[in-house]
Amino acid sequence: MTHRQVNAAVLLIGDELLSGRTQDVNLQTIAKFLAPLGVQVAEARVVADVPDEIIAAVNTLRAKYDYVFATGGIGPTHDDKTAECIAAAFGVAIDVRDDARAILEAHYKTTDLNEARLRMARIPEGAILIANPVSKAPGFQLGNVFVLAGVPSIMRGMLEDVGPRITGGEVVRSRTLRGKGLREGDIAAGLEALEQGAPSVTFGSYPWFGPDGFGANLVARSADPAALAKAGEDLKTLIRARGVEPEEVDEAA
Amino acid sequence: MTHRQVNAAVLLIGDELLSGRTQDVNLQTIAKFLAPLGVQVAEARVVADVPDEIIAAVNTLRAKYDYVFATGGIGPTHDDKTAECIAAAFGVAIDVRDDARAILEAHYKTTDLNEARLRMARIPEGAILIANPVSKAPGFQLGNVFVLAGVPSIMRGMLEDVGPRITGGEVVRSRTLRGKGLREGDIAAGLEALEQGAPSVTFGSYPWFGPDGFGANLVARSADPAALAKAGEDLKTLIRARGVEPEEVDEAA
Repeated sequence: MTHRQVNAAVLLIGDELLSGRTQDVNLQTIAKFLAPLGVQVAEARVVADVPDEIIAAVNTLRAKYDYVFATGGIGPTHDDKTAECIAAAFGVAIDVRDDARAILEAHYKTTDLNEARLRMARIPEGAILIANPVSKAPGFQLGNVFVLAGVPSIMRGMLEDVGPRITGGEVVRSRTLRGKGLREGDIAAGLEALEQGAPSVTFGSYPWFGPDGFGANLVARSADPAALAKAGEDLKTLIRARGVEPEEVDEAA
Repeated sequence: MTHRQVNAAVLLIGDELLSGRTQDVNLQTIAKFLAPLGVQVAEARVVADVPDEIIAAVNTLRAKYDYVFATGGIGPTHDDKTAECIAAAFGVAIDVRDDARAILEAHYKTTDLNEARLRMARIPEGAILIANPVSKAPGFQLGNVFVLAGVPSIMRGMLEDVGPRITGGEVVRSRTLRGKGLREGDIAAGLEALEQGAPSVTFGSYPWFGPDGFGANLVARSADPAALAKAGEDLKTLIRARGVEPEEVDEAA
């Protein structure tokens, strides 16, 4: 059985990610959420709160990848420009929509539902809402673009509503073998030989240096379970040949 | 005195950042390193270990921004493709270079300096080496592109050698006022009024939700110290008007 590969891009929107004020964690959350659904994140971009940049990135990425996951910029303040930019990218109208307004009306006291908060009910024409189980103001899907909140806890909550809308392809799984004291340069030739001998497997080597020493993690990734199992054993053999006992790293952790 | 704005892009290279296996921290480190030098990170991209993608991103970003900081993919293993891709992007030759080889020869025992490790001495023609105070294998600068290691501790070390090569512009500083219990929708109109009244200042609002409650951080950014000082006072007034006592957040922390 052959499945096609399904690729996604992640578009992180916000000055605060580029100034260093905020450390992004959404890319990793999205990647780990999509992997078991059979979707690989193939590219990510971080853009500022600049409409032309957001629009250009959306249009480039939605043409190139099966799905785009955009996060950030859908709140009530003036620096939240994402919904308008998505509408502009698709060339559709945007206005306060009744279904989105109803969600906010059920959540906020009438006196609190001011003009700023109503901005969060501005939804591009033709978009499908994405439920927000945390703070109610919805995200939305337009075509193959999913627009989610930037706040990590809200973003994670919204992904639950997105999952059933995804048609994934082959599921790529990985094995990671940790070699404490392993030096990359000692296993590079052997690793390349493994890569050349296993066309359905991708091998990677990730060195680490820390207070408790150094080493390298060797990783095999494949959509073929049998090839991945063999690759795992091959990596163990490669590491043991350097006098190091490999440790299996739990990828789910 | 007017300085021009100097912008940089960050290009993070590696499958492991897109699969979710590795949480990037280099973007934030680079942004915080560059800010006091008068360089703003205006865009970041994360690309896989795919030569065509790396080459295209390098060429797009180096044409668009004053500087590009690329990290990852300069180690000894087959999945380290960055140096070759930078050479291809610039259309120059690449080979083992004597100065880089000498650095490795001084560090490794002769028997350890195998073909794989010598890959780390492959430097594009015309590039200037970047010192690696941690593990010796150098990075390099070609034109306005700085190529650094992906391992965070090594990347940080290499930045020290890069700093003196940067010609920065205006230094953008920021003030952050934290409002515990502050709700974005309540200050959105006031914040937009501040933005419209202060052309040299950018205002942002960043809500947070955590185990100890919720709130929003209001941020002002400007290259004009007097305008920034006024903006900080204006933000305090805005927050206090909602019955919340603002807390100054130390940006250096």
